[in-house]
Amino acid sequence: MSTYDQSAVTVLGLGPMGRALAGAFVAAGVRTTVWNRTPGRDRDLVDRGATGAATAAEAVAASPLTVVCVVNYDAADAVLRQEEVADALKGRTVVNLTADTPDRARSTDEWARAHGVGYLDGAIMTPTPSIGTPDAVFLLSGPEELYERYEPVLAALGGSRTHLGADIGRAAAYDIALLDIFWTAMAGYTHALAVARAEGVTAVELAPFAGGIAQILPALFTEFATDIDTGTYSGELNPITSAVSSLSHIVHASESHGIDASLMRVIEGLARRVVAEGHGSDGFSRVTDLLSRRAH
Amino acid sequence: MSTYDQSAVTVLGLGPMGRALAGAFVAAGVRTTVWNRTPGRDRDLVDRGATGAATAAEAVAASPLTVVCVVNYDAADAVLRQEEVADALKGRTVVNLTADTPDRARSTDEWARAHGVGYLDGAIMTPTPSIGTPDAVFLLSGPEELYERYEPVLAALGGSRTHLGADIGRAAAYDIALLDIFWTAMAGYTHALAVARAEGVTAVELAPFAGGIAQILPALFTEFATDIDTGTYSGELNPITSAVSSLSHIVHASESHGIDASLMRVIEGLARRVVAEGHGSDGFSRVTDLLSRRAH
Ligand SMILES: NC(=O)c1ccc[n+]([C@@H]2O[C@H](COP(=O)([O-])OP(=O)(O)OC[C@H]3O[C@@H](n4cnc5c(N)ncnc54)[C@H](OP(=O)(O)O)[C@@H]3O)[C@@H](O)[C@H]2O)c1
Ligand SMILES: NC(=O)c1ccc[n+]([C@@H]2O[C@H](COP(=O)([O-])OP(=O)(O)OC[C@H]3O[C@@H](n4cnc5c(N)ncnc54)[C@H](OP(=O)(O)O)[C@@H]3O)[C@@H](O)[C@H]2O)c1
Repeated sequence: MSTYDQSAVTVLGLGPMGRALAGAFVAAGVRTTVWNRTPGRDRDLVDRGATGAATAAEAVAASPLTVVCVVNYDAADAVLRQEEVADALKGRTVVNLTADTPDRARSTDEWARAHGVGYLDGAIMTPTPSIGTPDAVFLLSGPEELYERYEPVLAALGGSRTHLGADIGRAAAYDIALLDIFWTAMAGYTHALAVARAEGVTAVELAPFAGGIAQILPALFTEFATDIDTGTYSGELNPITSAVSSLSHIVHASESHGIDASLMRVIEGLARRVVAEGHGSDGFSRVTDLLSRRAH
Repeated sequence: MSTYDQSAVTVLGLGPMGRALAGAFVAAGVRTTVWNRTPGRDRDLVDRGATGAATAAEAVAASPLTVVCVVNYDAADAVLRQEEVADALKGRTVVNLTADTPDRARSTDEWARAHGVGYLDGAIMTPTPSIGTPDAVFLLSGPEELYERYEPVLAALGGSRTHLGADIGRAAAYDIALLDIFWTAMAGYTHALAVARAEGVTAVELAPFAGGIAQILPALFTEFATDIDTGTYSGELNPITSAVSSLSHIVHASESHGIDASLMRVIEGLARRVVAEGHGSDGFSRVTDLLSRRAH
């Protein structure tokens, strides 16, 4: 713990993630000030030693570093882009761990520059229970110098921090791409559970095998990555015609039980288009190419 | 190797997976006969000690056990449901490791019964390079007695075999549900790579973090499973309103680069419907309930 900069931190936003972040700072002995739009969310944190602030301006004035974690950048703007808050932040630093698009990160960076506020953008890639544990994963982008200065405080959040470079939009770009994978997998799982249930298989029966599927993904992701960066799209081990066949079984089994298969129909459609364009012996990775093609 | 029943096995279908299966049998010292619709695919296997058969009927006559692994059950039917093949199979056993729907497994089982053929249905849950290694995962369903008899031969394929019970459709039901997760995750990954590329992030840069996302899934799958079997759908750690927000960022970032976001739009639409129905503070797991609802 002696490696943390013990100074102080402010956390704005006390949803499930904001509370987890503030809780980890408190647990690590960092002097923590908290604020949330709807009052009363700070009770448990204050009991554990955090200081509850009455306004966002008062909160940010208490620490050199403010961590923002609200639902999106509309919410972050509503909190930060108020005259008193901007005035109180002058000369201080904001780390915005709210998820949104690279464009919004860039716009917030411009606002921060115009108001003399140091700005790092970030993304949290793991769920709330990971915060303060070795499993937490944080991505950050923005000035190297700010990252170096505040990294010791952020270390109180546990896990790993990766600085993706000075380009402020980079953490959000990774975040968007990674959440894309996360939410499609979760959507696939909800659909799988609906199909399983209709076939008399419970979620608890399926879950360990579903976990097995997740375990084969990292190696396939690495293989796909090379395919895509080099434009090779090898289907030698698993041609996209085979994927089309699997996908049509899923659609069929799903719809025969009256289960909405629109998600799988979209994926099947993409794979079929690759085949129709003459690339049936390529791998599924060629879908990336199809998706990237600008409509004219 | 002495634990395998060394007798003999026939493999019908020499696509990437059929070749991997036959190769594992040969490597384990099982006497292996192979056949494929398009000739010439057996060359490498024959070099390693397999016997190439001229017809499917000749192939199945060579072994008490035949493993079928072709693209789907239309293909399996085209091979098995010929008079000479059915005659040669009488009194022998087929393990069908082709992927398809539970209905097709049931129909094949009926055909097998009518022709005095023993029948086990199965599914392979891991990619070709896993075959013959500890990573292979096989699911099987059908008569316990047949499973017990041939398990020692199938052990040559490596990894784990789970007998899901006598209900012949069960392996296909698990397979469909698990492939659903697999293909949605892969589709999400292709989309993520398209978005990343547009943001100047290469696939190789993103891949390790994408692997990190896969690693958090098993624990979430287990959590979701309890939610779904008990109908609780807790959003305490991550409400579906937060998912809607994430999904709309992904759609927005994707479309701002001209990337097809139809897949993410479907998922966003499902999450928004849950919110519109008044369940915004529930978790994303409630989508399962929405998907299962029969249209009237
Ligand atoms: N939960 C997770 O597992 C997880 C994982 C990784 C990343 N994240 C990201 O972390 C961020 C926060 O997520 P969360 O789980 O804590 O829940 P959330 O539901 O996304 O955010 C709730 C927070 O946003 C605040 N908020 C909403 N609109 C606001 C506005 N107009 N002005 C001020 N505050 C506003 C809420 O304040 P009120 O209490 O006043 O409504 C509350 O503090 C999100 O960007 C999310 O994507 C979450
Ligand atoms: N590859 C994998 O990673 C993987 C993983 C798990 C499960 N599986 C499953 O394993 C099965 C086989 O997959 P695969 O990867 O080997 O490739 P595949 O492309 O799905 O299947 C190719 C095989 O099917 C045969 N075939 C197609 N139509 C036929 C017909 N009408 N009559 C006879 N044979 C026909 C092909 O014969 P020809 O050579 O004559 O065309 C070839 O032997 C599929 O059900 C797949 O879902 C594959």
